[in-house]
Amino acid sequence: MPEIRGYATHAAGAELLAYRYEVGELGADEVQVRISHCGICRSDLHLIDNDWQVSKFPFVPGHEIVGTVEAVGKAVQKLQPGERVGVGWQSGSCGNCTWCRSGKENLCPDSQPTCVHRNGGFADAVRVPARFIIPIPEALESENAAPLLCAGITVYTPLRTYGVSPASRVAIVGVGGLGHLALQFARVFGAEVTAFSTSPAKEEEARAMGAHHFCNSRESKGMKALGGSLDLIISTVNADQDWSAFLTTLRPEGVLCLVGAPSRPLQIPGSLLIQAARTVSGSNTGSPLALAEMLDVAARHKVKAQTERFPMGRVNEAVAKVRKGAVRYRAVLAN
Amino acid sequence: MPEIRGYATHAAGAELLAYRYEVGELGADEVQVRISHCGICRSDLHLIDNDWQVSKFPFVPGHEIVGTVEAVGKAVQKLQPGERVGVGWQSGSCGNCTWCRSGKENLCPDSQPTCVHRNGGFADAVRVPARFIIPIPEALESENAAPLLCAGITVYTPLRTYGVSPASRVAIVGVGGLGHLALQFARVFGAEVTAFSTSPAKEEEARAMGAHHFCNSRESKGMKALGGSLDLIISTVNADQDWSAFLTTLRPEGVLCLVGAPSRPLQIPGSLLIQAARTVSGSNTGSPLALAEMLDVAARHKVKAQTERFPMGRVNEAVAKVRKGAVRYRAVLAN
Repeated sequence: MPEIRGYATHAAGAELLAYRYEVGELGADEVQVRISHCGICRSDLHLIDNDWQVSKFPFVPGHEIVGTVEAVGKAVQKLQPGERVGVGWQSGSCGNCTWCRSGKENLCPDSQPTCVHRNGGFADAVRVPARFIIPIPEALESENAAPLLCAGITVYTPLRTYGVSPASRVAIVGVGGLGHLALQFARVFGAEVTAFSTSPAKEEEARAMGAHHFCNSRESKGMKALGGSLDLIISTVNADQDWSAFLTTLRPEGVLCLVGAPSRPLQIPGSLLIQAARTVSGSNTGSPLALAEMLDVAARHKVKAQTERFPMGRVNEAVAKVRKGAVRYRAVLAN
Repeated sequence: MPEIRGYATHAAGAELLAYRYEVGELGADEVQVRISHCGICRSDLHLIDNDWQVSKFPFVPGHEIVGTVEAVGKAVQKLQPGERVGVGWQSGSCGNCTWCRSGKENLCPDSQPTCVHRNGGFADAVRVPARFIIPIPEALESENAAPLLCAGITVYTPLRTYGVSPASRVAIVGVGGLGHLALQFARVFGAEVTAFSTSPAKEEEARAMGAHHFCNSRESKGMKALGGSLDLIISTVNADQDWSAFLTTLRPEGVLCLVGAPSRPLQIPGSLLIQAARTVSGSNTGSPLALAEMLDVAARHKVKAQTERFPMGRVNEAVAKVRKGAVRYRAVLAN
């Protein structure tokens, strides 16, 4: 039997150990991808720690995968061995619901993540249904493209959902793995871009990545100056925030869209929503169609993840550094 | 000097007293309306009680006004004495901002309510700028039309904002002054309509007003059965709710829109928003254009407020009954 070699977590919060798992005959609709790079996302840490109570041990984390097609199942069309491809957060869906049939597979109630009850990308290979294999445009470097497959699409989707244009004023909360890509994409959409961060040290980099303005969200003076001015705020952070303060920076009909989930419920005064017809929403990754579009935009507009590369064998060191929030801005494992 | 006679509140929470105020020459852009009817809205009670800390005493409450044009200022066109018209929550705006210029005056940051720092409709007449005078279609009875000018437009706006169609599943939280109109309008839009209420006694009337389904939101079995099924929930209530329970009844991309504001902040788990790209938003009244459209829809589709009429002189009795929540479903004062 063929086997795949990678690194698996065997218990909540444990270090990853070298791991092999057997795979049988390739399914008719499946593709085997030989992995060159895999980004480390905060969601991998949540799964390793079983924070969401959905992890099934042992498993191989990793869902920002770039590699080449190694083999395709009998029914797979349009993918050839040797082709460079990517795999993101999602690797399965029902294929039949409203969402699947309208090109929004990420909203399918039966969506199957790449590394939940499956083995993901901290490995030499992965098997994924062809529907969730995304071609990588030639202009993108594999190492910089890998983080686009989860972090990138996660911040790209709300820019599209809310129709961001050169007339828009967009702010990004948090300059990190997601935030540094959000700033670049928001700039590509032509928006006037504000970076919210509590780390003044990140101002220079935030500006280099596309921010016209930098605001320390702990400073009420700066927040007040933004009052009623923003069309869209994308919040990438997991820490609790003073959501009322952010809401007051929104114009009428403005949107605060979460792509990072704080562990405690948000406190939202209803009057702040009603007064100016404001919205608080959430957005999750994106469909295969959206992924392909986003990669095309990234290639044409030179959006790329700023990465720190680790050999696959040093996965525990990389995970520890992500855990500390010390990576600028995305850790990528390379085979 | 001409004068207007009505009933004013002189201190927070006090009974209304007969009141006269002098008015000078009619402004060039103003219209004087001889009032026949005025609905009592919960917002009037909030203003009487100074709950929002914006009331300036003494003042005449009332902002669901129907009457006839008595006089028009020199610059007023297209309004003739004798014409039947209405006035709602809003009586002023800057006229120059993005919102005013795009027919969304209700979102103008300088919006001026009809009875805040002004005198409203618990009176024999009122003066309002012509821009905020709304013609009343002939088919509507004045008494039933008055509550449409605030309660009606408040629930109509989100149905339009969120594109409700015959394919939509819409739920209304609360069967009261706003809710009973929301059920009727949702049905007119062709939606499958669910009424959420904690008063089983209201089921029959809710169904008569348009609800296909009735769900006691305190019963978890019924709430679970609705899981992931609704496109839009319009919440008309001021009481705190288990918002998570409502959010789980929404489909992917579903919207919970508040038109009633609970006094305490909503507790919203970010994960419920992100998971299925759900939205929590607020909506406030509607513009003059929207008011005219809503009245036209009401006239053609026979939407009408179920009212309890009180002579203007019994305003305190009427206010007391509204305060107790004992009116089915809207109190209207009549001259």
